[in-house]
Amino acid sequence: MTRTIEYKFRPRLLAAASVAGKKEGDGPLGPLFDQIEPDDLFGQDSWEKAESAMLIRTVNLALEKGGVTAKSIGAVLMGDLLNQIVASSFAARELGSPFIGLYGACSTMIEGILIGGALVDAGYIDNCVCAASSHFCSAERQYRFPLELGNQRPPSAQWTTTAAGAVVMDRQDGNCMARLTHATIGRVVDYSIKDVNHMGAAMAPAVADTLTAHFSDTGRSHEDYDLIVTGDLGIVGRKIFCELISKRGFNIPEDKIFDCGANMFYPEQDTQSGGSGCGCIASVLAAKILPMLNRGEAKRVLAIGSGAMLSPTSSGQGESIPGIAYGAALEAER
Amino acid sequence: MTRTIEYKFRPRLLAAASVAGKKEGDGPLGPLFDQIEPDDLFGQDSWEKAESAMLIRTVNLALEKGGVTAKSIGAVLMGDLLNQIVASSFAARELGSPFIGLYGACSTMIEGILIGGALVDAGYIDNCVCAASSHFCSAERQYRFPLELGNQRPPSAQWTTTAAGAVVMDRQDGNCMARLTHATIGRVVDYSIKDVNHMGAAMAPAVADTLTAHFSDTGRSHEDYDLIVTGDLGIVGRKIFCELISKRGFNIPEDKIFDCGANMFYPEQDTQSGGSGCGCIASVLAAKILPMLNRGEAKRVLAIGSGAMLSPTSSGQGESIPGIAYGAALEAER
Repeated sequence: MTRTIEYKFRPRLLAAASVAGKKEGDGPLGPLFDQIEPDDLFGQDSWEKAESAMLIRTVNLALEKGGVTAKSIGAVLMGDLLNQIVASSFAARELGSPFIGLYGACSTMIEGILIGGALVDAGYIDNCVCAASSHFCSAERQYRFPLELGNQRPPSAQWTTTAAGAVVMDRQDGNCMARLTHATIGRVVDYSIKDVNHMGAAMAPAVADTLTAHFSDTGRSHEDYDLIVTGDLGIVGRKIFCELISKRGFNIPEDKIFDCGANMFYPEQDTQSGGSGCGCIASVLAAKILPMLNRGEAKRVLAIGSGAMLSPTSSGQGESIPGIAYGAALEAER
Repeated sequence: MTRTIEYKFRPRLLAAASVAGKKEGDGPLGPLFDQIEPDDLFGQDSWEKAESAMLIRTVNLALEKGGVTAKSIGAVLMGDLLNQIVASSFAARELGSPFIGLYGACSTMIEGILIGGALVDAGYIDNCVCAASSHFCSAERQYRFPLELGNQRPPSAQWTTTAAGAVVMDRQDGNCMARLTHATIGRVVDYSIKDVNHMGAAMAPAVADTLTAHFSDTGRSHEDYDLIVTGDLGIVGRKIFCELISKRGFNIPEDKIFDCGANMFYPEQDTQSGGSGCGCIASVLAAKILPMLNRGEAKRVLAIGSGAMLSPTSSGQGESIPGIAYGAALEAER
């Protein structure tokens, strides 16, 4: 059975917004984000509330760009890395819109586009917002160590991106940044990686699995895409992913594979393998990929968001790290 | 804008399964569950793995009853209360099916039916499984206190149900337990309740909000339903909900409102306000409500699952408890 959805009306991604933290703003993609916030706390009194405030600001900016109000939105699909997705739930409280809470770790943005696209394409709702966020400080203390510890990290470790991205979707005609033509549902893949500082290795097999399913379901190959965007494999994970797909017989030129995490920071920013977090692909999609499609610099992009579905509890119990990846095929408006 | 989806093909709930713990088995609904497991650990070495094992067993049982294999399922939509929904992710790893991870706290089962129903109804996938779980021991230590503490609970506190429920859905003709005709998307509602032992009060306003939206969107009233099933308001929350809707002018006979949490345990089982947890409405839907529709004892049921979207972190930071509720209108096959 196919894992790929084909959207009949090719839902429109009509507006997108991104907000990022200072470190991300100092990175190579800095000039592309809509807003860089120098205050890590976003004016709040906790990292968790800061993340929620960043998410609210991003969604509101996307709505503003799309010329829609929170009141007229059919559903907001959101998720984040925090326990019980509180960044999203509290953002949804503020927005007041119908809310669908998702958990796909760093794959959440593409999971949301897959589901939101389906709800819009089939006409169940007129429009939706898909959004996701992550914050270095809230993630670090929840998943790893207190920030104050200043512990060292191995070269395979990734740096949780402080960023949020949001897109507004509907199925109308007219101008837009891009259109959603297909999406491929993820499957949990586990290659028995147990090192929580090696997330890229845990996620790479899931990305390879979803890529394989997508090509098999659609009869397409990498030649049908100008760019294959992966979520946050990081520098190390991207390398593993390239090896995995090469072993499967896909001869994809390496420069066609753009990993959002690997491109989030400069090497001198000391982030080891690069960025990660739900906000990584979410913000890069909004800031770089959709504008590329909008300007016609790419005609067709396959965006694969990948998530590591672990918890500190499961790791503490000796469990390995299951990975999942969702894919979305995006096309420039003809 | 309407928050209610109308399903054109009225997706079929063709099979359902429930597995519950010993205490739940000793309760009034005990005889209705498919399986009662006397071992709280389900043969595993941690509560979290126990919950995952229970969920896997429930999904497999539902698949078996429906005559479908995990391999032929378009998607499994699951969620639970654990950090990073590890019970579901690890269950999805075992099942190997395409997986959509959800977080709606105790509303997850109905959130899943809403989304899964849409994916099936529109023909994006041929069939799906929607499932949810909770486990007293894994939830208690994550949200409240170590079990070993044996702390006292106030009368408004609820007892996390050790149970899982699963349904198999498709859009074929033919026999089934019930059909999904409508679903209403939830909105985050917050009445500033901060007492984590008073979840029913935090969720009741969201249930009232979704009920109001459902009636307004569909032009229906309580007279169109034989039963209004609420997720896990508990005895105290159900009373608050009845007061809220009465103040809004809905004259719904109280015996028409069946709360799964309030009916999970006998008073002498010392569970204060009754059951809660994602597995509460999930298991009761599978064990009691769908069989009632199947036997024609009810023609039409409105099932509203409600969730309290808090985390121990958000509570510790002085935040109130946002509630959400999703509704699903289920009809007996004509």
